[in-house]
Amino acid sequence: MELSHLDQSGRARMVDVSAKDATAREAVAAGFVTMNPATLRLLSEGSPKGDVLAAARIAGIMAAKRTSELIPLCHNVPLESVGVELTADAEHYGVAIRATARCSGKTGVEMEALTAVTVAALTIYDMCKAVDRSMVIGEVRLLRKSGGRSGVYIHEE
Amino acid sequence: MELSHLDQSGRARMVDVSAKDATAREAVAAGFVTMNPATLRLLSEGSPKGDVLAAARIAGIMAAKRTSELIPLCHNVPLESVGVELTADAEHYGVAIRATARCSGKTGVEMEALTAVTVAALTIYDMCKAVDRSMVIGEVRLLRKSGGRSGVYIHEE
Amino acid sequence: MELSHLDQSGRARMVDVSAKDATAREAVAAGFVTMNPATLRLLSEGSPKGDVLAAARIAGIMAAKRTSELIPLCHNVPLESVGVELTADAEHYGVAIRATARCSGKTGVEMEALTAVTVAALTIYDMCKAVDRSMVIGEVRLLRKSGGRSGVYIHEE
Amino acid sequence: MELSHLDQSGRARMVDVSAKDATAREAVAAGFVTMNPATLRLLSEGSPKGDVLAAARIAGIMAAKRTSELIPLCHNVPLESVGVELTADAEHYGVAIRATARCSGKTGVEMEALTAVTVAALTIYDMCKAVDRSMVIGEVRLLRKSGGRSGVYIHEE
Amino acid sequence: MELSHLDQSGRARMVDVSAKDATAREAVAAGFVTMNPATLRLLSEGSPKGDVLAAARIAGIMAAKRTSELIPLCHNVPLESVGVELTADAEHYGVAIRATARCSGKTGVEMEALTAVTVAALTIYDMCKAVDRSMVIGEVRLLRKSGGRSGVYIHEE
Amino acid sequence: MELSHLDQSGRARMVDVSAKDATAREAVAAGFVTMNPATLRLLSEGSPKGDVLAAARIAGIMAAKRTSELIPLCHNVPLESVGVELTADAEHYGVAIRATARCSGKTGVEMEALTAVTVAALTIYDMCKAVDRSMVIGEVRLLRKSGGRSGVYIHEE
Repeated sequence: MELSHLDQSGRARMVDVSAKDATAREAVAAGFVTMNPATLRLLSEGSPKGDVLAAARIAGIMAAKRTSELIPLCHNVPLESVGVELTADAEHYGVAIRATARCSGKTGVEMEALTAVTVAALTIYDMCKAVDRSMVIGEVRLLRKSGGRSGVYIHEE
Repeated sequence: MELSHLDQSGRARMVDVSAKDATAREAVAAGFVTMNPATLRLLSEGSPKGDVLAAARIAGIMAAKRTSELIPLCHNVPLESVGVELTADAEHYGVAIRATARCSGKTGVEMEALTAVTVAALTIYDMCKAVDRSMVIGEVRLLRKSGGRSGVYIHEE
Repeated sequence: MELSHLDQSGRARMVDVSAKDATAREAVAAGFVTMNPATLRLLSEGSPKGDVLAAARIAGIMAAKRTSELIPLCHNVPLESVGVELTADAEHYGVAIRATARCSGKTGVEMEALTAVTVAALTIYDMCKAVDRSMVIGEVRLLRKSGGRSGVYIHEE
Repeated sequence: MELSHLDQSGRARMVDVSAKDATAREAVAAGFVTMNPATLRLLSEGSPKGDVLAAARIAGIMAAKRTSELIPLCHNVPLESVGVELTADAEHYGVAIRATARCSGKTGVEMEALTAVTVAALTIYDMCKAVDRSMVIGEVRLLRKSGGRSGVYIHEE
Repeated sequence: MELSHLDQSGRARMVDVSAKDATAREAVAAGFVTMNPATLRLLSEGSPKGDVLAAARIAGIMAAKRTSELIPLCHNVPLESVGVELTADAEHYGVAIRATARCSGKTGVEMEALTAVTVAALTIYDMCKAVDRSMVIGEVRLLRKSGGRSGVYIHEE
Repeated sequence: MELSHLDQSGRARMVDVSAKDATAREAVAAGFVTMNPATLRLLSEGSPKGDVLAAARIAGIMAAKRTSELIPLCHNVPLESVGVELTADAEHYGVAIRATARCSGKTGVEMEALTAVTVAALTIYDMCKAVDRSMVIGEVRLLRKSGGRSGVYIHEE
C-alpha cells in the first residue's frame, strides 16, 4: 500500500494525471454542526435569519472553487457544478450540510465537495459564535463519488 | 439573544469593531481525523512518510492566514503566530490536530484556529484518500480563547 | 497638480504612507444596476428570490476585503466594518447599492467601498443575466469620506 | 421566467453545465469613467503619465482571470485571451474602457469581460483620486457575446 | 522580432491562444540558493531540519498553481503535475532546486516551473534568514520545454 | 545556531512575534535578468515597448502585497510603501531590478522586497520568452534592511 502523494523517499509531490482520461466525475460529501437548541432556533425562525444559511451556502460554493489553493497537492479542476444544502435538524440539535461537486476531468472532486462542507460549517460557526462557542463540527466525510479509474465509492454508514 | 452578524432585518453584515480595544488574543482549536488502522500506520512509519504531516501542518498555517478570504464576515487579522500540532493516536485510530493562533487586535482569532484545524484535516484526507476514502473529520471545536471583551472561554469536554 | 501614484518619471508606485497618522476613516460609495422591469420583479417577489440579494451583499463584503489584491497600488487595510445595502427601486427600474467601509489606518477606504459596490453589482448581473443581458451598471461614485489629512469629502449630486 | 442561479426554493446554486457543449465563446463589455477635464488632461499628456493607463489595463486583465473568485456562482473558466482598451475621450470628459474575453468552454465569459472593465475603471479612480474624488464609473454593460446555446447577443444602444 | 505580449502600440495584452492546439506540454526549470556553509549544515542534519525542505517543496508546488495570479499576462493552465526537487550541494555551498510542470493545453508551462523554483527559493530564504541574510538566489532558468508549436527547447549550459 | 521557523523537533512553525515591538522597518532587495542583447534592445526602444517594464513594476508591487500567501511561514504585514525600479543595463546585457518595502510592524519586510524582485523578474521573462528563452534570473539578494531588534543589515558585495 502506497501513498500516491509521496515519492519513494516520502517527499510530497502532485500526482501526475497526464495519462488519465477525462471522465465525468461527481462527489458528494456531508457534515454536521452540533449546537445548543437555542442557537438552532435562532437559525430556524424563518426569513429574518435567512442570511446565515445563505452566507454558509455561498461560502461553501466559493471555497470549493478555491480548493486547489488550500490543499497543497490538489489539482486545479474547472468545476461544472457545486451545490450546498443546509438542513436544520431539531432532533439532533444542529445543521446538516451536504455538498455535491461535478466536473469533467482527469481527477476527482472529492476534495472540492469536502472543502465546501467544511467552509460552510465554519461560516455557521462564525455567524453564531457570539451566542454559542460550544458548537462542534463533525462527521465530515465523503458519502459517494463516481467517475475515474477507481469507479464508484459509497460510504457505509 | 441576537446574532451579531445580522442586522435587524436578518441581513448579513460585517460586525463593526472600530470602537473595540486592541488586546492580546489567543485561540486554541482542535479536531480529529479517524482512519483505518492500516492508513494510520502509513503515516507513522517515521521519516519516509513525514511529508504528509509536514504538508498538513503547513497547509493549516497557510489557511489560517487566509481565513478572512474564506469566511464571508470574518475580519482580516494580522496574525502574530500560528502553530499546528499533529499527533498520531493509535488508540483512537487517527490523527489529533490542535492549532493555536495569536494576534493583537480588535477581533478574536477563533476562526483562524478553526480554519487551520479543518484545512490540516482536509490535507491529511487528500494525501491518504487513495488508500482510504472512509476517513472522517470530526470533533472540530474551540478548546479555549482569551482576550477581548468576552474574556476567557474554555470548552467543557 | 500631480498624480500621487506616479513618480516624477510617470512610473507607477505605491504611495508611501509611513509618515501619516492612523485615524478613524470611513467611506460611503453607491451605484445602480438598471434592468428590465420584469427582471426587477423577479428580485422583489419576496423571500423565494432572497438569495440573489444575499449573494450580492456577501460578494460585495468579501470583495472589499480583497481590494488590495485587485487594485495594483492600493494598500492592504485591515477593515473594521463593511456593510452593503441593496434596495429594489421600482421607479427607476433597478437596484440601488450603497456600501460603507471603516478602518483605523493610515490610508482611506474609498477603494474598499467602491469595490464592494461594483462586485455586488456584478453579482446581480451574473445571477440575472440568463433572463436579462441588457442590464447596465452605472453611477458608481464616492458619496462621502471622512478621516485623514484631506478631511471630509461629500459628493455633490 | 426563472433565475437559473436559484433552485426552486430560491436558494443560490452554481448552474450545472456538465451537459453543455464546449464551444468558442467571446464577450465584449464596455464602461466609462467620467472625470474633471483637468484630471483627463493629466492622463493624456503622453508617456510620462502612461503608467496610469498601463496599470488599469493590467489590473483589468488580471481581475478577469480571477472573476470566479469574486462572483459567487461564476464558473472558473480557463481564458484564452483578454484584452482591455482604454481611450481618453476629451469630448465626453473621461476614459472609455472596452474589454474582450475569449474561451473554449461550457460557459460564457460575459462576467470576465465585465469584471475586466470594472476593475480597470476602479484602478483609474484609485490612481487619480488624489486630484479628483468626483469621478463616476458608469455605462458598464455587455456590448456583445457569442457562442453557446443562447447564441449571439448584441446590446442595442 | 516582436514581443507577443504587446500589441502594435506597445500595450500589454494576453496573447490569444484560442486557435492553438491543446498538446502535452512539459517544462523543467532550475535555480540555486547560495548560502553560508554553516547555514547549509543546518539544513542537512537529517530529519530534525526536514521541514525546511518540505516547506519549500510544498510552497513551490502551491505557487505553481497560482502562477496566473502573479504574472499579469500568463494564462490560467490546469496543471496535471508539478514536482519540486531540492538537493543540498555541499560543494557549491547551497541548495539546488529543480521543478517540473506538465499540462495538456494551449499554452506552455514554463512560467509555472519557473514560479515553483523561485517561490521554493524564497521559502528557503525565509526559513533561514534569521541565521544568514547573505543568501543569494541565482541561476533561475528554463532547462527544457517540450510541446506546442515551438517544439523542444533545451538550455545550453 | 537555531532556525527560528522550526520548533525543537524540526517542525515548521510561524514565529511568535506577539512580544516584539512595532517599529519602522525597511528592506531593499535586488536582482538581475540577463538576456540576449537583441532582447534588451526590444525593451529599450522607448515608449512603444514601455508596457513590459510597467507590467513588471506593477506585478512586483502586487506580489509584494501577497507575500504571506506564497511563503508559508511569513506574517501578513500591512505594507506602507512598495517601489520597484527597473533599469536596462546595456553593459551587462540585462535589466537590473531593485525593490524597496516599508512597514511599521513587528516583523521585517525582507521577504516582501525579495518577492517583488522575483515576480518582476518572472514577468519580464514571461513577456520576452517568445523571443528569448535563455534569459537567466540571478543575483537575487537582500541589499539592506533596517528596523527591529536585529537592527541594520547591509549586504557586502
